[in-house]
Amino acid sequence: MINVLVWNENRHEQRDEKVKSVYPDGIHRAIADFLKEEDHKVKTATLDEPQHGLSDAVLQETDVLVWWGHLAHGEVEDATVEKVKQRVLDGMGLIVLHSGHFSKIFKALMGTSCDLKWREADEKERIWIVDPGHPIAEGLGEYIELEKEEMYGEHFDIPAPDELVMVSWFEGGEVFRSGCTYRRGKGKIFYFRPGHETYPTYYHKDVQQVIKNAVNWAKPADLPVPVYGNAKPLERIRVSQEGVEN
Amino acid sequence: MINVLVWNENRHEQRDEKVKSVYPDGIHRAIADFLKEEDHKVKTATLDEPQHGLSDAVLQETDVLVWWGHLAHGEVEDATVEKVKQRVLDGMGLIVLHSGHFSKIFKALMGTSCDLKWREADEKERIWIVDPGHPIAEGLGEYIELEKEEMYGEHFDIPAPDELVMVSWFEGGEVFRSGCTYRRGKGKIFYFRPGHETYPTYYHKDVQQVIKNAVNWAKPADLPVPVYGNAKPLERIRVSQEGVEN
Amino acid sequence: MINVLVWNENRHEQRDEKVKSVYPDGIHRAIADFLKEEDHKVKTATLDEPQHGLSDAVLQETDVLVWWGHLAHGEVEDATVEKVKQRVLDGMGLIVLHSGHFSKIFKALMGTSCDLKWREADEKERIWIVDPGHPIAEGLGEYIELEKEEMYGEHFDIPAPDELVMVSWFEGGEVFRSGCTYRRGKGKIFYFRPGHETYPTYYHKDVQQVIKNAVNWAKPADLPVPVYGNAKPLERIRVSQEGVEN
Amino acid sequence: MINVLVWNENRHEQRDEKVKSVYPDGIHRAIADFLKEEDHKVKTATLDEPQHGLSDAVLQETDVLVWWGHLAHGEVEDATVEKVKQRVLDGMGLIVLHSGHFSKIFKALMGTSCDLKWREADEKERIWIVDPGHPIAEGLGEYIELEKEEMYGEHFDIPAPDELVMVSWFEGGEVFRSGCTYRRGKGKIFYFRPGHETYPTYYHKDVQQVIKNAVNWAKPADLPVPVYGNAKPLERIRVSQEGVEN
Repeated sequence: MINVLVWNENRHEQRDEKVKSVYPDGIHRAIADFLKEEDHKVKTATLDEPQHGLSDAVLQETDVLVWWGHLAHGEVEDATVEKVKQRVLDGMGLIVLHSGHFSKIFKALMGTSCDLKWREADEKERIWIVDPGHPIAEGLGEYIELEKEEMYGEHFDIPAPDELVMVSWFEGGEVFRSGCTYRRGKGKIFYFRPGHETYPTYYHKDVQQVIKNAVNWAKPADLPVPVYGNAKPLERIRVSQEGVEN
Repeated sequence: MINVLVWNENRHEQRDEKVKSVYPDGIHRAIADFLKEEDHKVKTATLDEPQHGLSDAVLQETDVLVWWGHLAHGEVEDATVEKVKQRVLDGMGLIVLHSGHFSKIFKALMGTSCDLKWREADEKERIWIVDPGHPIAEGLGEYIELEKEEMYGEHFDIPAPDELVMVSWFEGGEVFRSGCTYRRGKGKIFYFRPGHETYPTYYHKDVQQVIKNAVNWAKPADLPVPVYGNAKPLERIRVSQEGVEN
Repeated sequence: MINVLVWNENRHEQRDEKVKSVYPDGIHRAIADFLKEEDHKVKTATLDEPQHGLSDAVLQETDVLVWWGHLAHGEVEDATVEKVKQRVLDGMGLIVLHSGHFSKIFKALMGTSCDLKWREADEKERIWIVDPGHPIAEGLGEYIELEKEEMYGEHFDIPAPDELVMVSWFEGGEVFRSGCTYRRGKGKIFYFRPGHETYPTYYHKDVQQVIKNAVNWAKPADLPVPVYGNAKPLERIRVSQEGVEN
Repeated sequence: MINVLVWNENRHEQRDEKVKSVYPDGIHRAIADFLKEEDHKVKTATLDEPQHGLSDAVLQETDVLVWWGHLAHGEVEDATVEKVKQRVLDGMGLIVLHSGHFSKIFKALMGTSCDLKWREADEKERIWIVDPGHPIAEGLGEYIELEKEEMYGEHFDIPAPDELVMVSWFEGGEVFRSGCTYRRGKGKIFYFRPGHETYPTYYHKDVQQVIKNAVNWAKPADLPVPVYGNAKPLERIRVSQEGVEN
């Protein structure tokens, strides 16, 4: 049983009829609903809640954080971003979805601009599994086909993924590294591309399977606690040239 | 011929007699001197110069930036760090030395705390080459032996290096990933551990060879210019379900 | 519950009193004993059994294969090595221990010579965890200390590990990448260095913990089945220059 | 100035009129011709020459070997494959083209089946540069467009590339990791997908640029010579529990 927090900006849902019709209770609710099928303890939080719903207490008890944002990355408080980053370094899993590539938290963990090409043209996306041995690929076939999605295209300015799990084909001629894992500190991060707010992508069984697998892959474990700072020697250090033995 | 800028905090040299005796003209001058043997165009800059010696003009013409800092990482202006980071993403090479692991620029590019263990005890360091096929290893033997250095020990909180070139053995019992390469955007980064300010490390022929090799490895080239943002399709996108052809 | 097969050459145990006194029932029994504590279904096999105990039936039902060999790598039948390799590509996990670095199966999967330095001198080994977030590091501390082991030293001629989990420090001055993961096809491979036959290394609680973790990490899952060969197009291919539409 | 050997199976050219019309002097001559523009010392060799044109003397003086094969991988002598592999581990560069993915040498260095999907249907290939900072991408634009090529599609059973430089988009709906680097021993390997024998692919300026860049990237240098085997300690090893000092 994993404690999952699904964080969503939740601004599109307020102002865009099309989005509201696809996700009447918000993208966060749609994602939380299918994650609950896995017997996880799932909570949600949105940008406009106090502290963005990411208080110290909430973050401390979160095992895996799922993040969707798009219009208002800049409104996420820097202090909150710093706390989320620290939790990832301490072992909390992080799953970044779609336009979350431009979130402050993802850019802070990547160190790059995370820029890319994009196009909204109702085009087909085919997500090929290029690493069929990866746990995140469990229960999937050779590819996932999405009838209509927003195109994201290379060059995607990210560090080379620690593991490249999926690469997408787009009808308009582009490709994109759409399933990428990273390790930062003790935390595991998975970036997963699909999820434009006007398409029912998060109702797609395969997309749901990927996110379920990712939550399971990213959960923390009982891991070593590194010790930093000034350290006493574990071995005897010999006499140095000036004749002083330490 | 490469335009190299050697940046040094240059505070130790002002206040510490021991450091002044080892590096009378500053660590930056010592490094610049041996880099000039390679017919590079070498400049230096220090923390206390206006804009830390890192104006837009200087950064624009710099091919590779070498960075040494220790006591005053926090005094480097955030705006300057952001400009240096952007230059790296655009292709400028960056070589981070020793205590520069805690510099704002290195931490920003890594996304981790970059923390580690340390000890000042005049102990021997043996830097093993674990990737003898790497260009940065050119002209070296199996290892580099430093009579006395400051110990840095694992766990070193960095992302897994894109390439691990060197691993150090310390007399007191620790190991450390001491030669690590990273790619960020179009830039190449090399972290190289040795260089405690009270030891004549930068006069060591093998240490000099590594830094010379790294400058050559990190230099930019005539590379593709990525295009980001809204992109027209390169292929015809078929009729969508709503009957609209794009 | 995982089906584990522990394969051991079992020649030292026949001819060397010292080894017999440390592992009276063979290294394979010692390893199988602690793996059974995890409720796995554990079998053993040795070189001198018919087909080396690696018949098609046995291999088909094996989820994770643990391999220890030293004196007689050359006596393992090439046909058997090929079958083991195919099982790994199809998803069977493989844990290669100590002198198994020179086994035919490990060299076949690596593509390199797997050569290294060595020394039998009763020296201390300290295995540092350099990736404390890795599942194989679960339940461990900062390092594992082995009072006496055989030294293995860099340069270790392996491909750069997909993940470097541990690096060893040796009393005599060397370092070694002692915990390395690889992916080949759908299979997961973990190379773990310690285990010289005259030392009670496989009774050490931390060494046992690593191997238990590795078995859990390497087990196969319900993963996509790749399809190879001549493939029909998934999209309509336009008229080519010669006017032929495919 | 680099010593390059272009090895081609040269069987298609003997039996297929279409191939003969595209490459009248053989694929090897076409590739050697453009490499000579770079002032390299370029030789060629084919399958049916004595020792496949790969005698010890020839291999010793070769800095970079370029390999194209398709119909007759099995006819390359195992002993020759072993010698080529050893040269790569010792530092010779290797560039494997197109159907060379199934060559004995590439499979031996990879450790996987190297299987993939394929289709001959005169379809468009667009090779996207996903790592614009890589030296192999020098002088290129965002992508290379090939009017007609043979499709290769994922899943491509290779180890995760050390560096993924290019990903291809195919008209029929597939993607493929088409520009991949690997390090084996001291050698550098580049796999580059395009080059079906009935298309004029090796006359394409961008394809030529990639191969020129790859030769430059893969060339050996004056690198450390690893030492293997029984090694004397570099440090004094203390008294062991039995009281013997080594």
